[in-house]
Amino acid sequence: MKVAIFLGSKSDSETMKKAADVLAEFGVDYKAYILSAHRAGDLLVKTIAKVEEEGCEVIIAGAGLSAALPGVIASRTLLPVIGVPLECINPGKSNGLAGMDALLSIVQMPPQIPVATVGIGNAKNAAYLALQILGIKYPEIKEKLLAFRKKMTADAEANGGSGFEF
Amino acid sequence: MKVAIFLGSKSDSETMKKAADVLAEFGVDYKAYILSAHRAGDLLVKTIAKVEEEGCEVIIAGAGLSAALPGVIASRTLLPVIGVPLECINPGKSNGLAGMDALLSIVQMPPQIPVATVGIGNAKNAAYLALQILGIKYPEIKEKLLAFRKKMTADAEANGGSGFEF
Amino acid sequence: MKVAIFLGSKSDSETMKKAADVLAEFGVDYKAYILSAHRAGDLLVKTIAKVEEEGCEVIIAGAGLSAALPGVIASRTLLPVIGVPLECINPGKSNGLAGMDALLSIVQMPPQIPVATVGIGNAKNAAYLALQILGIKYPEIKEKLLAFRKKMTADAEANGGSGFEF
Amino acid sequence: MKVAIFLGSKSDSETMKKAADVLAEFGVDYKAYILSAHRAGDLLVKTIAKVEEEGCEVIIAGAGLSAALPGVIASRTLLPVIGVPLECINPGKSNGLAGMDALLSIVQMPPQIPVATVGIGNAKNAAYLALQILGIKYPEIKEKLLAFRKKMTADAEANGGSGFEF
Amino acid sequence: MKVAIFLGSKSDSETMKKAADVLAEFGVDYKAYILSAHRAGDLLVKTIAKVEEEGCEVIIAGAGLSAALPGVIASRTLLPVIGVPLECINPGKSNGLAGMDALLSIVQMPPQIPVATVGIGNAKNAAYLALQILGIKYPEIKEKLLAFRKKMTADAEANGGSGFEF
Amino acid sequence: MKVAIFLGSKSDSETMKKAADVLAEFGVDYKAYILSAHRAGDLLVKTIAKVEEEGCEVIIAGAGLSAALPGVIASRTLLPVIGVPLECINPGKSNGLAGMDALLSIVQMPPQIPVATVGIGNAKNAAYLALQILGIKYPEIKEKLLAFRKKMTADAEANGGSGFEF
Amino acid sequence: MKVAIFLGSKSDSETMKKAADVLAEFGVDYKAYILSAHRAGDLLVKTIAKVEEEGCEVIIAGAGLSAALPGVIASRTLLPVIGVPLECINPGKSNGLAGMDALLSIVQMPPQIPVATVGIGNAKNAAYLALQILGIKYPEIKEKLLAFRKKMTADAEANGGSGFEF
Amino acid sequence: MKVAIFLGSKSDSETMKKAADVLAEFGVDYKAYILSAHRAGDLLVKTIAKVEEEGCEVIIAGAGLSAALPGVIASRTLLPVIGVPLECINPGKSNGLAGMDALLSIVQMPPQIPVATVGIGNAKNAAYLALQILGIKYPEIKEKLLAFRKKMTADAEANGGSGFEF
Repeated sequence: MKVAIFLGSKSDSETMKKAADVLAEFGVDYKAYILSAHRAGDLLVKTIAKVEEEGCEVIIAGAGLSAALPGVIASRTLLPVIGVPLECINPGKSNGLAGMDALLSIVQMPPQIPVATVGIGNAKNAAYLALQILGIKYPEIKEKLLAFRKKMTADAEANGGSGFEF
Repeated sequence: MKVAIFLGSKSDSETMKKAADVLAEFGVDYKAYILSAHRAGDLLVKTIAKVEEEGCEVIIAGAGLSAALPGVIASRTLLPVIGVPLECINPGKSNGLAGMDALLSIVQMPPQIPVATVGIGNAKNAAYLALQILGIKYPEIKEKLLAFRKKMTADAEANGGSGFEF
Repeated sequence: MKVAIFLGSKSDSETMKKAADVLAEFGVDYKAYILSAHRAGDLLVKTIAKVEEEGCEVIIAGAGLSAALPGVIASRTLLPVIGVPLECINPGKSNGLAGMDALLSIVQMPPQIPVATVGIGNAKNAAYLALQILGIKYPEIKEKLLAFRKKMTADAEANGGSGFEF
Repeated sequence: MKVAIFLGSKSDSETMKKAADVLAEFGVDYKAYILSAHRAGDLLVKTIAKVEEEGCEVIIAGAGLSAALPGVIASRTLLPVIGVPLECINPGKSNGLAGMDALLSIVQMPPQIPVATVGIGNAKNAAYLALQILGIKYPEIKEKLLAFRKKMTADAEANGGSGFEF
Repeated sequence: MKVAIFLGSKSDSETMKKAADVLAEFGVDYKAYILSAHRAGDLLVKTIAKVEEEGCEVIIAGAGLSAALPGVIASRTLLPVIGVPLECINPGKSNGLAGMDALLSIVQMPPQIPVATVGIGNAKNAAYLALQILGIKYPEIKEKLLAFRKKMTADAEANGGSGFEF
Repeated sequence: MKVAIFLGSKSDSETMKKAADVLAEFGVDYKAYILSAHRAGDLLVKTIAKVEEEGCEVIIAGAGLSAALPGVIASRTLLPVIGVPLECINPGKSNGLAGMDALLSIVQMPPQIPVATVGIGNAKNAAYLALQILGIKYPEIKEKLLAFRKKMTADAEANGGSGFEF
Repeated sequence: MKVAIFLGSKSDSETMKKAADVLAEFGVDYKAYILSAHRAGDLLVKTIAKVEEEGCEVIIAGAGLSAALPGVIASRTLLPVIGVPLECINPGKSNGLAGMDALLSIVQMPPQIPVATVGIGNAKNAAYLALQILGIKYPEIKEKLLAFRKKMTADAEANGGSGFEF
Repeated sequence: MKVAIFLGSKSDSETMKKAADVLAEFGVDYKAYILSAHRAGDLLVKTIAKVEEEGCEVIIAGAGLSAALPGVIASRTLLPVIGVPLECINPGKSNGLAGMDALLSIVQMPPQIPVATVGIGNAKNAAYLALQILGIKYPEIKEKLLAFRKKMTADAEANGGSGFEF
């Protein structure tokens, strides 16, 4: 296992699955855990230690609302922690704060305990960032990324890059 | 009766019922009132006095928009007042301010008149907070809370805490 | 000791001292700790247990930025936890987000783990709220609060309540 | 007396004096009261009734933070109530929310209890609005306003309206 | 005619009709115009003069986005102008800024040209405010308002004010 | 070709088509390209040079999220660049930031590299602005605009400008 | 004269002078007017017509608060109008909304009446944008811009572009 | 060289120096460049390639306003890019948007091109994050980090962790 994915809540799994899918596509092993910082603090601490022992090198953590999870993980490990701020339907009614609460909770970490924050709901980018981080150590991952990026650029150039009709 | 629940408007009852349900689950008596600070100020003042006489020890108040209700209650009692900011569909069209107006109206109280504010639409947490406050006086409530919290942690650990498949 | 005050950082002490001063004024014993959730997580967990053993009944926690402290404490105790969102000068330059980051980090807790949030920088109100909570158990505190509130109202009525000149 | 000015706090007097000065300039009698909705609710209710009896026809109310004052007054009278959202230095440190909390607290009133809200800190405009309201009943006030407006326009045209050098 | 209602756009009519309905209910004559400040500036200026000649005493103006309409009207008359900030579906896709753009555009007027701003989408309150303003001149309107307010309070007290079941 | 339209993503085409439709209506030739600043940077730079060679005189660029496209184009040409901030459904769930992220990313350009920003999602206005810019060079475009504007005003005056029934 | 600069208020002149200075540096004639849309509406309309007659081809308008000026000008001309949102110290106390009110008031124009909005307080960019617009008609301006841009890039490359020491 | 630091502007050097100081403290070589994405795009692209060739493994990029720099770099490399949103004094007057514009510009990247965003102005955390990323490849850096973290925790425990006096 190279990547551990932590979810604050079962309801985050649809979004966070997109990170897992990207990792799988690149053949990078991961394990996933639903471990709210507020509901299962002790098991969280133990699990962080366990995934480190099992060889995990990057952690992805997604959470909504008062999203303490990525920061709490970051305070318990020296592995890079990537935080995904999630939109969260308000417990009461309908609309939430569109993830601004989670974004600020995750990105505004105190000095010395950084969380590498990606865009709101952007679990895919958490995975790509994890791959780029792993790529500085594992040449085969970097090569796959290079091929992927080339294809991305070629696709972008092919799909409307030379002009298109509305 | 140990808890009084005040609603600013009939339309808040679906959300605020979640507070009532939690209290009922813990066997704590409550009474509920729909009493807008702006529509029924005199009856509100009288009712605050009445619930105090009837033994009420914690007040929960939910309101939306310019949510004066929790603060006005807080200014008329020395019982702890828990405020629940509610999202409110704009009177005109569709989207509201996602409860940010109510949150700021409730939490930004002047010195000496605090309102214990919980998250937007998070009526459940108002009830749990009320239980925790009552728990410092009533050991049987604290015990129920301890059992509940243990079960919550056990559930959290069981449901994905040891790893799960997307 | 009835109240424990937790600060996320030494730089929060000027603001949080105002809570301590109110408690002292009411003759309520407190102890204070600087214990960032992100820098000293283990000692924090131990200290929460310790203050509970020493009789603490209400916890006040102030923090800025990604203010995880009040929520992490709330997840480790069933005592009521009062959160004070603090403005925090950005590590880089001058202005911060005026405490909106801390407010959202503290108030938007997940269901079942409430934090009783007061206004931005309003440490005084955290103390008054703690006193009101203690007041439901300790009649002498409630009496002092009643006298204080009466004086507050009398002062308010005397200072411009009957008309004043600009 | 035609206008009553209510202030939520002594610290609002510097800003609110600007409303008084405009009224004085137009020869309109006013009285001013410092009467927080949260600190002196009973005297507030009595004073609203008293100023109505004394002939008051428009009420101006300025408040900061969770600015309940204008709305609470509006709920107790059928006179038009003009609300002035005030910036308020956070009790803890330095910067506040620039008056956005007060603006939302004042303007987002529930149906049937309007507050005529003016710009943040714009006490002058509260006075001009009061004069315009009185002007529909008192021709002499309207005439003064007309003269004032003409002068304002003439001044605007004279001061850079025909071109100016930086 | 006592009240003129100006709409910035045909698409605002559903919301603004609520103001008209309240006026009709109170037997107060009004006329309505769709006159964008940006599309029909000259006719707007003429119409303001015309409604003043026809006896109009209060103007209600609703607009969305960069809501210049209420302010431009206010700059052309000394009648009190009530502004209603409207939510506006973004021309491009779906969600708008929930009316915050219109609120700031309407309420933040420069000194000397006030607009009496009501809540986002709250056209009803614009009508009640107009009635309260007219009430200081027309005793019969004030009496109707008194009866209405009494009924409102009685209804509020009857509907859950003495306790209700969720 | 006088106008080039750049889209950051295929998903922006529904909104941006509105700009194209306005240009077509005025008989102004345009070409459209889907060229994300982040996915196809080299082709973007080349295409900017190419459209300049082909006679393009105004560029319209629409983008969402971290909307770098308009600014990057502006840094590579001295043609006026019109930026359209687009709402963007968050990659994860449902609601986005209503285009505020794109607005700030586009409008807050550093000194010397301006982007002429129009309203969120307001691709139509980008086209009208392009026409107005071209109109200072091409009298026939200005004449068409004058006719269009006259019709717009006449329509505005005809549709409710002289009064309408709700 | 090729450019007219309109200011909403004398207090905007320090910021707006930066636009004038850039124009002067490029040898482009301009005239400046202080003409609030709310204080001198008639003279504003006349002056717009006058500057058009005098050959003006681009208009720059800076305003704060409820910044109606750029939009009102845009509704009265078919010249491109560049809007500069200005920060405005709140009339009451100290802090303003950092120009967000002016930004939204200026950029969120209704369809068909665009304002080319630049960054908050960024009067310089308004001038550069005006130059770029004029550049499509006047080759000598475009040439000067090209030389300026080359120098800008050369300076950027020279000042830290090849590495620097903190 | 293991880390390259890019600054959008000379005025960012005071803040960004804090990142350099942390790297120096840990004995990690870095080079710094002032290379605005908007002023020196070609040299930026070349420099990214050059630092990769020279062995750079992590890039730190700080920028304010419409902070395109980190995203543009991320689009040109597969090294992990850490973005530091910077507060930026508005070009016009005094207050800026407190870095919210830069935060949203940097963090809200499109899928597949992530930027690892840290808190506003928090250049220190960018350096610690870079060290943690390097630590997964270089055991000696990880060891230094472990020693540093232990000291940080020990300091935190020593300074007020066991109780302190205000």
